[in-house]
Amino acid sequence: MRSIQAFQAAAPGSGLELVTVERRELRPDDVAVRVTHCGVCHTDLHAVSSQDPNAFPVVPGHEFVGEVAAVGASVTEFAVGDPVAVGNIVDSCGVCAMCVAGQENFCAEFPTLTYGGRDRVDGSRTLGGYSGEYVVRDRFVYHRPAGLDPAAVAPLMCAGITVWEPLRRWQVGPGSRVGVVGLGGLGHLAVKLAHALGAQVTVFTTSPGKADDARALGADHVVVSTDPSAMAAVANSLDLVVDTVSAAHDLTPYLGVVALDGTLCSVGHLGPIDIETMALLIGRKSLASGGSGGRPHTQELLDFCGEHGITADVEVVPSREVGTALERLGRNDVRYRFVLDLADLG
Amino acid sequence: MRSIQAFQAAAPGSGLELVTVERRELRPDDVAVRVTHCGVCHTDLHAVSSQDPNAFPVVPGHEFVGEVAAVGASVTEFAVGDPVAVGNIVDSCGVCAMCVAGQENFCAEFPTLTYGGRDRVDGSRTLGGYSGEYVVRDRFVYHRPAGLDPAAVAPLMCAGITVWEPLRRWQVGPGSRVGVVGLGGLGHLAVKLAHALGAQVTVFTTSPGKADDARALGADHVVVSTDPSAMAAVANSLDLVVDTVSAAHDLTPYLGVVALDGTLCSVGHLGPIDIETMALLIGRKSLASGGSGGRPHTQELLDFCGEHGITADVEVVPSREVGTALERLGRNDVRYRFVLDLADLG
Repeated sequence: MRSIQAFQAAAPGSGLELVTVERRELRPDDVAVRVTHCGVCHTDLHAVSSQDPNAFPVVPGHEFVGEVAAVGASVTEFAVGDPVAVGNIVDSCGVCAMCVAGQENFCAEFPTLTYGGRDRVDGSRTLGGYSGEYVVRDRFVYHRPAGLDPAAVAPLMCAGITVWEPLRRWQVGPGSRVGVVGLGGLGHLAVKLAHALGAQVTVFTTSPGKADDARALGADHVVVSTDPSAMAAVANSLDLVVDTVSAAHDLTPYLGVVALDGTLCSVGHLGPIDIETMALLIGRKSLASGGSGGRPHTQELLDFCGEHGITADVEVVPSREVGTALERLGRNDVRYRFVLDLADLG
Repeated sequence: MRSIQAFQAAAPGSGLELVTVERRELRPDDVAVRVTHCGVCHTDLHAVSSQDPNAFPVVPGHEFVGEVAAVGASVTEFAVGDPVAVGNIVDSCGVCAMCVAGQENFCAEFPTLTYGGRDRVDGSRTLGGYSGEYVVRDRFVYHRPAGLDPAAVAPLMCAGITVWEPLRRWQVGPGSRVGVVGLGGLGHLAVKLAHALGAQVTVFTTSPGKADDARALGADHVVVSTDPSAMAAVANSLDLVVDTVSAAHDLTPYLGVVALDGTLCSVGHLGPIDIETMALLIGRKSLASGGSGGRPHTQELLDFCGEHGITADVEVVPSREVGTALERLGRNDVRYRFVLDLADLG
């Protein structure tokens, strides 16, 4: 086994501590990634805050970058030293219709999550990227554009792909009219990506103070969603609205700004929701949801970001400040994503 | 004014009586249609059963056929004797984005309904097709294929266009995998139309006894929706599911049979519904709703049905038996649509 430094929460309420964990020795199709930077996702906060003893121990982190430290005997796609990135899925069945379609995130057997999952070979619990090294099947390692700031690439692997998938699914391109609800970790990347795809971008925010930031990110219009007249002014005008807000909220106002035959896609994991079907009927609008992405689109996103120089706006913090970062994230006090600098653990 | 025989309900609970009503004299862009057959829609039953005094008097009927009896001075598209059909919309603003897009059914000013609406010129209450003649603006009169049984064409104008719109919106064609939920007035037409478009059609029904009928209509597969194993066998397999059930029901099982990037479109006017967004997220599925259709698609539907010899399966009843027809419709005792023979009123 490979002994690795990692930030682990041992039990509910225990908080994260730097400990030594074991990674498996490399299988033939494994890649060992020396982790340099890992984004801090809301999911990490939920995991550490869980009251379920069965969810522990947990090492969070599912959007990270680094370099290849070692490769298994049959790995041909990667070599030691390659700049790489890993997201929130590290394995899948590979044979179901979803996997065959390149949507391993919807694997019929459920994909293996980067942390808190079960390794498909040895049954061990997966431990995440808040660590000095990660061992992962080669199929779920991605080539990272070398020209981009590694720290700012990390959030592309979860926040980025989650908003990239709907932009691609609904064929956003020049002339598309795209709305983005919420300007956090996901939302700010949705604005950058939609803008780079050529879309006209409208940001919906409850914070008038974010208007300048939104425009700087690439938004063409900013609508304060609590202003009924501002909302009415953009009624039925957007082909795709990507709603990145994860707190419970009424979707009806955002259906109202969707154009004929357009779509509101929530990527916020809202749980059960109430919808008045008339809000869908008038204008034949669609409500969709999404999360994460498959292998082909993940590499496509990284390549696109490399070509267009797109990264997340991040606040890089030393790994020992992870507790402060999570606490501030809980207050949404971040612009727009915390990234842990883990290079000293590797 | 033109004195016309019509079946009218004067007040809540009064039931339908054959009375004389007045139609307007023709405006320059009006067409007078001698009504020969009118379909009996669930909406008619709701209208006659209303407890709202302001909803009366009501003459139901919004899917009817006949011949042109007279035309206004500026009408060029129609001549006396032409076989025509009229649906559930008889006017719209004509200038909003929805009207310009040919979706007058979503007119920003709300379209003028064939009965129970307000005429946009004189403000009078519109009276429906359970009558010997209807006077209607020429834009909302459609050319009816002369080779089809008129009685069996009538239901195309509401039931038919309501299911045609989602089939066209989601580009159903050869190779499409289409599900149809419910085998009533709307559902049986959805099966016929999807089959004629070249789709593989799966019917979902709670009545195992309807399997043979479904296949005779063009279904390739029949699934009894109350059988969990039968539902599991078609999980994630359909590109478009058209749900025609208007009674409150759980949409989750039908989302389960939608394939990756597919759509469940309810045309049943369900009102408020609860949805677990995870049922949308896994497979990135869309939930949509629809109802009625616009002018271009309505004529397209009639032309398509003329080319393919498609009509509704109807039970034609003499107009004086309208009360019995509505009572039987209330018990769903119809296969698949009642049509009133109104030729004796004209």
